[in-house]
Amino acid sequence: MSELYVENPLEFWCNNYGLSSADVVFLGVPFDGTSTGRVGSREAPNAIRAASYNLETYNAYTKKDLKDLKMTDLGNVMTCPGDTDESLKRIEKTVRDIREKFPVIVGGEHIITLPVIKALVKEHPNLTVLQFDAHLDLKDEYLGNKYSHVTVMRRISELLGKGKVIQVGCRSFSPDEKEYAKKNTVLKTPENLLNYDIKGPVYVSIDMDVFDPSVAPGVSTPAPGGMIPEEFFDLLREIGKRMEVVGFDVVETCPPHDDSDMTSILSAEVVKETLLAFR
Amino acid sequence: MSELYVENPLEFWCNNYGLSSADVVFLGVPFDGTSTGRVGSREAPNAIRAASYNLETYNAYTKKDLKDLKMTDLGNVMTCPGDTDESLKRIEKTVRDIREKFPVIVGGEHIITLPVIKALVKEHPNLTVLQFDAHLDLKDEYLGNKYSHVTVMRRISELLGKGKVIQVGCRSFSPDEKEYAKKNTVLKTPENLLNYDIKGPVYVSIDMDVFDPSVAPGVSTPAPGGMIPEEFFDLLREIGKRMEVVGFDVVETCPPHDDSDMTSILSAEVVKETLLAFR
Amino acid sequence: MSELYVENPLEFWCNNYGLSSADVVFLGVPFDGTSTGRVGSREAPNAIRAASYNLETYNAYTKKDLKDLKMTDLGNVMTCPGDTDESLKRIEKTVRDIREKFPVIVGGEHIITLPVIKALVKEHPNLTVLQFDAHLDLKDEYLGNKYSHVTVMRRISELLGKGKVIQVGCRSFSPDEKEYAKKNTVLKTPENLLNYDIKGPVYVSIDMDVFDPSVAPGVSTPAPGGMIPEEFFDLLREIGKRMEVVGFDVVETCPPHDDSDMTSILSAEVVKETLLAFR
Amino acid sequence: MSELYVENPLEFWCNNYGLSSADVVFLGVPFDGTSTGRVGSREAPNAIRAASYNLETYNAYTKKDLKDLKMTDLGNVMTCPGDTDESLKRIEKTVRDIREKFPVIVGGEHIITLPVIKALVKEHPNLTVLQFDAHLDLKDEYLGNKYSHVTVMRRISELLGKGKVIQVGCRSFSPDEKEYAKKNTVLKTPENLLNYDIKGPVYVSIDMDVFDPSVAPGVSTPAPGGMIPEEFFDLLREIGKRMEVVGFDVVETCPPHDDSDMTSILSAEVVKETLLAFR
Amino acid sequence: MSELYVENPLEFWCNNYGLSSADVVFLGVPFDGTSTGRVGSREAPNAIRAASYNLETYNAYTKKDLKDLKMTDLGNVMTCPGDTDESLKRIEKTVRDIREKFPVIVGGEHIITLPVIKALVKEHPNLTVLQFDAHLDLKDEYLGNKYSHVTVMRRISELLGKGKVIQVGCRSFSPDEKEYAKKNTVLKTPENLLNYDIKGPVYVSIDMDVFDPSVAPGVSTPAPGGMIPEEFFDLLREIGKRMEVVGFDVVETCPPHDDSDMTSILSAEVVKETLLAFR
Amino acid sequence: MSELYVENPLEFWCNNYGLSSADVVFLGVPFDGTSTGRVGSREAPNAIRAASYNLETYNAYTKKDLKDLKMTDLGNVMTCPGDTDESLKRIEKTVRDIREKFPVIVGGEHIITLPVIKALVKEHPNLTVLQFDAHLDLKDEYLGNKYSHVTVMRRISELLGKGKVIQVGCRSFSPDEKEYAKKNTVLKTPENLLNYDIKGPVYVSIDMDVFDPSVAPGVSTPAPGGMIPEEFFDLLREIGKRMEVVGFDVVETCPPHDDSDMTSILSAEVVKETLLAFR
Repeated sequence: MSELYVENPLEFWCNNYGLSSADVVFLGVPFDGTSTGRVGSREAPNAIRAASYNLETYNAYTKKDLKDLKMTDLGNVMTCPGDTDESLKRIEKTVRDIREKFPVIVGGEHIITLPVIKALVKEHPNLTVLQFDAHLDLKDEYLGNKYSHVTVMRRISELLGKGKVIQVGCRSFSPDEKEYAKKNTVLKTPENLLNYDIKGPVYVSIDMDVFDPSVAPGVSTPAPGGMIPEEFFDLLREIGKRMEVVGFDVVETCPPHDDSDMTSILSAEVVKETLLAFR
Repeated sequence: MSELYVENPLEFWCNNYGLSSADVVFLGVPFDGTSTGRVGSREAPNAIRAASYNLETYNAYTKKDLKDLKMTDLGNVMTCPGDTDESLKRIEKTVRDIREKFPVIVGGEHIITLPVIKALVKEHPNLTVLQFDAHLDLKDEYLGNKYSHVTVMRRISELLGKGKVIQVGCRSFSPDEKEYAKKNTVLKTPENLLNYDIKGPVYVSIDMDVFDPSVAPGVSTPAPGGMIPEEFFDLLREIGKRMEVVGFDVVETCPPHDDSDMTSILSAEVVKETLLAFR
Repeated sequence: MSELYVENPLEFWCNNYGLSSADVVFLGVPFDGTSTGRVGSREAPNAIRAASYNLETYNAYTKKDLKDLKMTDLGNVMTCPGDTDESLKRIEKTVRDIREKFPVIVGGEHIITLPVIKALVKEHPNLTVLQFDAHLDLKDEYLGNKYSHVTVMRRISELLGKGKVIQVGCRSFSPDEKEYAKKNTVLKTPENLLNYDIKGPVYVSIDMDVFDPSVAPGVSTPAPGGMIPEEFFDLLREIGKRMEVVGFDVVETCPPHDDSDMTSILSAEVVKETLLAFR
Repeated sequence: MSELYVENPLEFWCNNYGLSSADVVFLGVPFDGTSTGRVGSREAPNAIRAASYNLETYNAYTKKDLKDLKMTDLGNVMTCPGDTDESLKRIEKTVRDIREKFPVIVGGEHIITLPVIKALVKEHPNLTVLQFDAHLDLKDEYLGNKYSHVTVMRRISELLGKGKVIQVGCRSFSPDEKEYAKKNTVLKTPENLLNYDIKGPVYVSIDMDVFDPSVAPGVSTPAPGGMIPEEFFDLLREIGKRMEVVGFDVVETCPPHDDSDMTSILSAEVVKETLLAFR
Repeated sequence: MSELYVENPLEFWCNNYGLSSADVVFLGVPFDGTSTGRVGSREAPNAIRAASYNLETYNAYTKKDLKDLKMTDLGNVMTCPGDTDESLKRIEKTVRDIREKFPVIVGGEHIITLPVIKALVKEHPNLTVLQFDAHLDLKDEYLGNKYSHVTVMRRISELLGKGKVIQVGCRSFSPDEKEYAKKNTVLKTPENLLNYDIKGPVYVSIDMDVFDPSVAPGVSTPAPGGMIPEEFFDLLREIGKRMEVVGFDVVETCPPHDDSDMTSILSAEVVKETLLAFR
Repeated sequence: MSELYVENPLEFWCNNYGLSSADVVFLGVPFDGTSTGRVGSREAPNAIRAASYNLETYNAYTKKDLKDLKMTDLGNVMTCPGDTDESLKRIEKTVRDIREKFPVIVGGEHIITLPVIKALVKEHPNLTVLQFDAHLDLKDEYLGNKYSHVTVMRRISELLGKGKVIQVGCRSFSPDEKEYAKKNTVLKTPENLLNYDIKGPVYVSIDMDVFDPSVAPGVSTPAPGGMIPEEFFDLLREIGKRMEVVGFDVVETCPPHDDSDMTSILSAEVVKETLLAFR
């Protein structure tokens, strides 16, 4: 059977090692159940896969190439719309199964980081979360809900303990969140992050709204004044050199509100650059 | 203080009687938490309000006019994204407060009809639900979820009892749903509905996907082969003459997937025509 | 390795038999090189796959279910943008490899039907092509090009011989094309097609512009006055009963010009209904 | 200087006779100053020109061809945004210059028909206006404005006199407009128009909202329940046989609210079909 | 009557003091009658209201909060499409009624600033206008029109007198406008504005095209090379400290040409930041 | 015949000298046959023409004005969709006809630069090409195709010889392309270009993806980290002073993927600024 000219309809660009021999596993998590602003990040994993085909796989700065990674795209987690608890359980379970690989998690909205961390902390008990985000996500509850994209880092901070959440690029928050951050997390600007010494395994969580709306308009809750790709990629490469990164996620890309696909394309680039910086 | 030239930024076109003296209450329910297909019906109440300003308030067939109704727009229910239980409770509570009025409920997705019925059945114990829909919505659960837009009529049928849900226009379903319908609900085509005699109070639930996608493309799950507005409005006027209608909803309009606003405009027309047919 | 909650990111809904044991093979052909009007049908195979997830797999009329077919999605042919010859060769080669299966070809624009027929005619020497289309596609050349979406049926008619192309629903053409049709092909309306007796194997080619723009606006060259889905599906079911259909294609869906995804959704429904009518 | 392969960037498809020898003159009027609903019909003339390139010039029913008309595209009237009076004067002046030709006027919104009629009535003193429209446009004023798309036919009726405005397809109006119509104009359904005998020169004004929103969603104020193209074209051909048509306009196409370009494409088809019916 | 979970469908986020006790009044002015480029800024007031719900009300730099302002949203001025004179009169009349409050005017296009200034100059005879804009808006007339978005600052300069219009960020203009500016207004770059001493009451008029198209693409006439939000907000905070600001407007946001809602979201942020800088 | 108020429907803003007396000729080349990513740059020439009407013709820096150029818009080359060879021949032939003028070529995708250079090199044998681009476009073939937007500069380099292609702004490429560039072309950053001395006639080819996606999202293959308009325009003005520029093109603008028309508007500005820098 010749299949010379046939290609898979849609997976993130990779060399398809197959799950058992792959080092790096791409996993889509199309869940957006707690979105309070613009909804639709459930469509991001496939939009980012589609965008990945127009990237060069090679990076001129690091001289590394996606082709050289042992990588597979596992598909999407089947979440349960309308049932947040059940959905988070399924995400946790799925990530637990691949916890020995290097997971590349693509949301979906930010609450999905909570079950990912729950799964990974068993493998990496001393885990630190390095969050890039326009928002602190440290509210205790929102509209009566304790598990939401605006409370996720509060829950993770409670889980990992004081000083184990490092927050970078945050520029929009309430006084209460600021108060909580002062006592429990570590706030950094992109400029002073590298002065801070992080020991042990690090998981990087990238909320696409950390970027400026001029480069990432299609997120659930855009906020003026964010990072631009070049400074972000430079920072990532330094992080890759200094820290022991054990996985990362890219969340909050919202395709129904991302005309011209600017944010999906940048998200694909972020996945590529982050991978090449960390592997 | 002269306010001669000022108008309210956005409510459904009405004469603004104020809640206490109004007979008819328009209530938006921007909840889309269980949507499995295209998400975003949370934006429908405001989109339908905006579209209402381009309608003539007068109807040439019935010679009735929205201007003659004592009506108010109460605003939107504050639902709780990510927490379906809590959201449904708030909807039920709010509708209970207006149960002596004629409620015009605008979703949001179809699960919102469940708490509305729970609120109204206390006022109208012998209530029948007349559902216009492309789908039966009679699944027992979906992806592990018992409370969803695809299970809502199963839950309502269990609540109201055998024969108390009349289903019109349904053309897409699974064998299991058909089986359940045969035993528990009443299936009608638009053509033979009027042969069927419904006694007692009736609540009408209009899923916009009962219409053909050519006139209502912007719904969560479009299905070819639906009704067209003229036949629907004719049927409604007959229903208005023969039945004791105590309220209605219009659900599943999905503005982020409704380019040219076709479906929001039709939804506004449906609210107007249904009101003028029933009041 | 538990993969309980993981699903493939994007293939047409099917039960995934695998190529060797499948009877039915879905193949995407993302080629739109000769489009003269609106371009972008290359995006159709993936758009139609995505739309397939919101369909019920069961059909209430035929009581058949996609779940019962032995089907696989082979992926997309890798065509060669800018080189029409080479692209057509690759399509032909790929289809030849699956010529013993029942092929479901999803374009792409109409020129792709030519290499498909070239591949199938070896398996089925007496092949008839049954074309549903708003246009005759019988021009001899267009802007100097002999191989184009507006010449494809001329080329196929030359290949298969007189009377072997049956054309249904055509309503837009030049006097020259009409002249050629009178001498070489068979013109039918949807109403009188079934009076015509087709012997031997039949390949059905469905240009989505055969439908009315009200239900299929997102095609390359829409033309007012087309078929509606119900009449098309009824006709297909009769064809399935009377003819020996050996494969079909669905072409000219153009996602960049298909706001609200109306045409991709209808195309997915057409693939489903056609499959259930013919298998 | 060889210009073998160069074509004009954008004019309505025609054989470019040049103004002096042309019989038929296409004139764009990009004015939308009085639009109260969705604004943007100023973009329609160029959108309809662009859409005209995907039409076959030949019509299979009448066996006539745009190629056989002596036609030119004069360009667009330079209107004056913000100054309705001045804009209407410029339109009148321009049309007066071409009043001996057969004018094809493409709006813009409906108020532009008033200056066109003012210009033509000097050439054709006994002129009747045959209006296809979802609305009567017979209000005396609107929000304080006497010259508006909703008052235009009142003004024209006052100008031409009782019984000189024939209104077809109207389905949305106020009681006052109905009252005025009874006394001053002639109301017809598409079905009974041909029973009515119109003597003398006739100008046909086609508001695209006479069509059903399923085929023409991109108009300023869509209203459910309109005509479909086939019935409209059939009627036009009969009008062409029985009446002395001296010009026509196509108005209210609104490109910024016409996703997938459905309405621009239909408008181009309407211009073509109307021309071939009348010339 | 419990209304615990009900919220107003759409007003700018504020604490709803009611008109009589409010200090700050938000007023929408949905007028775009003189737009010569892309039209549709009439939709901006409601789009900006909708966008305001996704902002944090707190500002981390000034440590001020929208919640602490006594503010109300009065609704929209009912303008008169097609009649610029009448519309400007209504705007002037409405603003005069609230001239003792701090007005926040949201357009609409730039001509609306003229009647606002006419209303306020009676309260503040020595008023200076501080304009942020890509264009000088100093043409004497345009296409024959003296009252237009491109002449508005010429009219205001004539009204207030020499040196009373300060123009910042202007980068696109004709030689004539430059000439007029040299003699009659004060041209400043964002960098050197603060060197200039403005005495007495100041009204700030913010044309959203002062921003770079990368952050504000959805304006009527975008021009490359504008300000970015951070520098604008910094400058505003300095202005708030040094000048006696008596009101401001935000104009020219054009939602039909603002895909992804980037400009509406930024406009809401501009309203918030400007309010917190000035109150 | 008075045509006082009539304007041509669509040509790039210019003073319409007519071909024989014009110095500068604008030529659209709507060809996108080899696009591998997002397709649709065929629509760019008309989109850029439409956008040109909202520009001021005067430039404040150079104090030059489009009105002072002897310029004409020749229209679009009629290319042959599906036949790359024939299309390139027609482009070459057409450009040869205007080789004594200053050609302003607007694509279309980048392969169109090859036939333009073939035509111009006869007039200017020592021609250097100065390319602004995110990509090197130096692949030897792509998917089996030697003539493609990703191979075009390889072909031109082979044609003109070593050192005759200067590449600026390139940031995305494969190792092979880099290798070829080192040996055959000249790589420059925007900062160090002016240190390099170019003798003889220069043709400037501007791929719009040289800009950052924040200002030019609507290109076929966006890449983060590009130039911004101000630095580009400054550089152009220096080039205009130092080099003998004999023509330029602007390519890869892709209107179907350019929501809010950001990239078409910038492309029109680029045409204007480049013209005023070079003439």
